Amino acid sequence: MKIISHITDMQRWSEARRLAGKTIAFVPTMGFLHEGHLSLVREGKKRGDVVIVSIFVNPMQFNQQADFATYPRSLEQDQLMLEEVGTDVLFYPNAPEIYPEGFQTAIEVDKVSQPLCGAFRPGHFRGVATVVAKLFNITKPHFALFGEKDFQQCVVIKRMVKDLNFDLEVLPMPTVREPDGLAMSSRNARLSPTERQTSLCLARALHRAQDLVAHGERQASSVLQAVQEIITGEGGVRIEYISLCHPETLEEVAEVSGPTLLALAVWVGDVRLIDNCVIR
Amino acid sequence: MKIISHITDMQRWSEARRLAGKTIAFVPTMGFLHEGHLSLVREGKKRGDVVIVSIFVNPMQFNQQADFATYPRSLEQDQLMLEEVGTDVLFYPNAPEIYPEGFQTAIEVDKVSQPLCGAFRPGHFRGVATVVAKLFNITKPHFALFGEKDFQQCVVIKRMVKDLNFDLEVLPMPTVREPDGLAMSSRNARLSPTERQTSLCLARALHRAQDLVAHGERQASSVLQAVQEIITGEGGVRIEYISLCHPETLEEVAEVSGPTLLALAVWVGDVRLIDNCVIR
Repeated sequence: MKIISHITDMQRWSEARRLAGKTIAFVPTMGFLHEGHLSLVREGKKRGDVVIVSIFVNPMQFNQQADFATYPRSLEQDQLMLEEVGTDVLFYPNAPEIYPEGFQTAIEVDKVSQPLCGAFRPGHFRGVATVVAKLFNITKPHFALFGEKDFQQCVVIKRMVKDLNFDLEVLPMPTVREPDGLAMSSRNARLSPTERQTSLCLARALHRAQDLVAHGERQASSVLQAVQEIITGEGGVRIEYISLCHPETLEEVAEVSGPTLLALAVWVGDVRLIDNCVIR
Repeated sequence: MKIISHITDMQRWSEARRLAGKTIAFVPTMGFLHEGHLSLVREGKKRGDVVIVSIFVNPMQFNQQADFATYPRSLEQDQLMLEEVGTDVLFYPNAPEIYPEGFQTAIEVDKVSQPLCGAFRPGHFRGVATVVAKLFNITKPHFALFGEKDFQQCVVIKRMVKDLNFDLEVLPMPTVREPDGLAMSSRNARLSPTERQTSLCLARALHRAQDLVAHGERQASSVLQAVQEIITGEGGVRIEYISLCHPETLEEVAEVSGPTLLALAVWVGDVRLIDNCVIR
């Protein structure tokens, strides 16, 4: 696996691959990799000739300095895991390489950045859209893979790609879960054993909602109430939001008719966790 | 000359040229072409293997609906002129192709969009940056040529390209002038014969400023006063701004030391004209 840390080197490498007729898959990450990331790399390897993975903990998308500072990092372990799944290039720039002095440009994806996580993390999706656009221009992929655990992120990136005419395909991939149902996340590492147990209420709540709809419930309010009861049934969990909304526009729905996104964000202790499912 | 109006067709054409090892030059325009545009196409033809010219009167960059409505258009004549200078492709999309329903993304280049024209045309450079980024992703050029008459536009685009890591070169080209010194502009067509004569005060003012500095004047205030006197000496001219500033940051300067941009915007009747020069 090649490690590249400079933008121009990365562009030169990708351009050469493209000129050689190779198809480039790209998986952007913030490191501290888990099976969720690796599943994206494996899928990229399957669909493309070469796979680039980036690791960059993007300061622009953290609205809280503390979250950025404590975001878990483990480069050596990440490298081993990436080698093992056949990554061709790890793009690993430092912050001044990505945000040099004088940097002053931002990309805003308006409506789909507003609700859900966007309402609680001001500037977050602006930071995400901007860095992902940069990474697309740096790695020049034919397609890019994102985990559906960050569902709103997938929606924002898809919208940006369409609106700015990036000539590449965004492939959202199913959330990978621990055997007990917890969605994999780098932030899970910060949960205490008790919190780890508590956090299972998220997956349980998603199942309950799917069950209710499968059995004929259509009122969003009833589904949301059931979800809320499951989550508040656990001590030490604070709900940030629970929403039933359209999976493309992210506009809230009053009735579950057609595919509907159920999205949750909660705090377990001082760890913020999100999860979601599309109810069909 | 090939005429392409669909985004995917344009992307396919450019991708094929790139895969064939060809160098693509790109000249974005709003049509109603004049010698200024043609000089860009000729230069592109000289430096690249193929030249793409786009014609798109971009609604997103007009802050006044009336200006957009009266912006001059002349497709047939434009086509003839572009054929004559050896344009390979005219990209000529309609507005819904560029801004389909649901479009909601914008690019903001912060500091350099604020002063000069940015202060009087809210949202203008946001519209320019966004459409140019789209056109870059659609035409996939190795370099793009812009006229220095729109100096601030060149600065904004260069900043965006750097900040978002577009892998292409921005080439600002010298302003082309009428024999009597008036900077070429599609908007000149809207001047009455008297206004056309009046508008020569812009080039005269630029010359006077250069003369003053060449003869040792360093105080920005003195240079600006001389410029203002020449322009207000003409009846029927209203000054929007006159500025002496740094040619990259566009920050105003108190003294002319090193290359300095003198930028003017005035209204002659109901036609807005801009001009500039870099005093060295």
